Amino acid sequence: MASSLLKDELDIVIPTIRNLDFLEMWRPFFQPYHLIIVQDGDPSKTIKVPEGFDYELYNRNDINRILGPRANCISFKDSACRCFGYMVSKKKYIFTIDDDCFVASDPSGKQINALAQHIKNLLCPSTPFFFNTLYDPYRDGADFVRGYPFSLREGVPTAVSHGLWLNIPDYDAPTQLVKPLERNTRFVDAVLTIPKGTLFPMCGMNLAFDRDLIGPAMYFGLMGDGQPIGRYDDMWAGWCIKVICDHLGLGVKTGLPYIYHSKASNPFVNLRKEYKGIFWQEDIIPFFQQVILPKDCTTVQKCYIELAKQVKDKLSKVDPYFDKLADAMVTWIEAWDDLNPTGASAKLPNGKA
Amino acid sequence: MASSLLKDELDIVIPTIRNLDFLEMWRPFFQPYHLIIVQDGDPSKTIKVPEGFDYELYNRNDINRILGPRANCISFKDSACRCFGYMVSKKKYIFTIDDDCFVASDPSGKQINALAQHIKNLLCPSTPFFFNTLYDPYRDGADFVRGYPFSLREGVPTAVSHGLWLNIPDYDAPTQLVKPLERNTRFVDAVLTIPKGTLFPMCGMNLAFDRDLIGPAMYFGLMGDGQPIGRYDDMWAGWCIKVICDHLGLGVKTGLPYIYHSKASNPFVNLRKEYKGIFWQEDIIPFFQQVILPKDCTTVQKCYIELAKQVKDKLSKVDPYFDKLADAMVTWIEAWDDLNPTGASAKLPNGKA
Repeated sequence: MASSLLKDELDIVIPTIRNLDFLEMWRPFFQPYHLIIVQDGDPSKTIKVPEGFDYELYNRNDINRILGPRANCISFKDSACRCFGYMVSKKKYIFTIDDDCFVASDPSGKQINALAQHIKNLLCPSTPFFFNTLYDPYRDGADFVRGYPFSLREGVPTAVSHGLWLNIPDYDAPTQLVKPLERNTRFVDAVLTIPKGTLFPMCGMNLAFDRDLIGPAMYFGLMGDGQPIGRYDDMWAGWCIKVICDHLGLGVKTGLPYIYHSKASNPFVNLRKEYKGIFWQEDIIPFFQQVILPKDCTTVQKCYIELAKQVKDKLSKVDPYFDKLADAMVTWIEAWDDLNPTGASAKLPNGKA
Repeated sequence: MASSLLKDELDIVIPTIRNLDFLEMWRPFFQPYHLIIVQDGDPSKTIKVPEGFDYELYNRNDINRILGPRANCISFKDSACRCFGYMVSKKKYIFTIDDDCFVASDPSGKQINALAQHIKNLLCPSTPFFFNTLYDPYRDGADFVRGYPFSLREGVPTAVSHGLWLNIPDYDAPTQLVKPLERNTRFVDAVLTIPKGTLFPMCGMNLAFDRDLIGPAMYFGLMGDGQPIGRYDDMWAGWCIKVICDHLGLGVKTGLPYIYHSKASNPFVNLRKEYKGIFWQEDIIPFFQQVILPKDCTTVQKCYIELAKQVKDKLSKVDPYFDKLADAMVTWIEAWDDLNPTGASAKLPNGKA
């Protein structure tokens, strides 16, 4: 039966260049929800959406019309364009999924309602300050183990739920080239909080978040057409959201739910998109590991603007691209605040819009 | 078939007060290995060990004879006494297990060779500097995901492998009291590195470590007879080893293997042992979270002596017990170095014995 928990509080954001036939398989799970489709590439092309889904669709012309000159912060010809959908949503929660991801089955053969698991992850707290060896302590049949400080057992609000992939794993081009036949068949029945101070590679394929808590930091950067890099959109967002969540005392979870990732992208094409990123990440990650956000950064927006400043200061010497990216980060926040005048920041305890 | 990987390089340490009938079930897995049995309580009692096992047994009289006045650093009437076994071992690896732990089965019904999994964990590297969302990247069928820096893919040596428990979970007394019927039935098919900078509750029930890399820090403290506290022996060791592993660039893994924990200890008795710890851990954990070890602490011994100093400085004000514990930490290192004159520290890159 279709579950429709948070039906009026969650949008599903799908970036695509093709007809959305993949939705047929998701129908029992997604149909109660509103979809935001971000059409990438040629705007004159018509994207078919299966009957019965409630959706709005934005192509490049729409993005340009809505954002005006600020549209240049939204990537073109790259699934990074999906973050436009986060910006125009008016809901509290976002689930985003790639159009080559299908419903996975658990080891008992039961179809996995990925969205329901993400909602569960987002609605229960995270535990970033101390590791619980039995994984998510709030799950049925689990708890905090001996030695876990009682003062930390309330946890903190969960801002991000990062889901995983059966079948085609999310490998970089070199690993794809070396292991073309590797498939992920291991179902790990766990959700865990990524500890404070630890960075992780956030994949945008199967991802949910609380837009009120972290939305303005979910910017997928400048990728694809006219940019020197691709396939680092979600990684960039992941590093940014993690340092901001750590600063604001919010949680990031990873693990369940799995989706079934059907098709590996072309490793040769990927290598061309990624190769600068493979060098740059060696500087980017130490940068994010040492970022300190000042105490007066009490809203996501303030944190993000401060981060943009530090990116400009510290990463521009790696490549002029980061100078442009830092500017786009600021443009993104301006556009976000324009479209969300009483947005996320106003809802944080000490927030000012 | 009995696997006997590292047969001549690993000792199994078992603290006990009773006949070791539980070994019958472990025979196919443990018989190739040497056992070090640390008999707790009345030394005049005879502990029966099933036929065919190769073992040495130490009771309290042996401990007193071997360590002389330094024997006061070894707990009595508490399974913390097991660390005496770590000290007298001459092997590179230790596996320690409680005598109420039996062979668990995986979801397919196959008996789990816990020792073989620990050895696998210890022999392959850890990844403490960045989180891999597909868990242990060195496992068959897994790898580092997109966005994982290539410079970190060699990993670091693994010092500790922390295994888990099916059936009776390792809960504190309050949780035992509240959830007397809770059983852990979830088999999570994962091993993961606990990130640098993150503390965890280390349970001594099913634990393996590289004695050369971390042995001198595996001190289980002062617990039980004559002490104001119990059941924090493994926790204490876990906090100490984690900050030292982080400082020395060593890894700590948790997850597989599972053992089957048969019998919950009495929650009322546990509450009496634990209750001071429940208060104290609220101070102890922030203390360990802020510990900084100076650069010249290049061996485990030096780290541990420095840690003892900081415990005395910072925790004695919580309770005079910590003053005594800090002294015992120093005594432990003296005793360790006496029994291991060319011990672990000499084998570290910059180590001096």
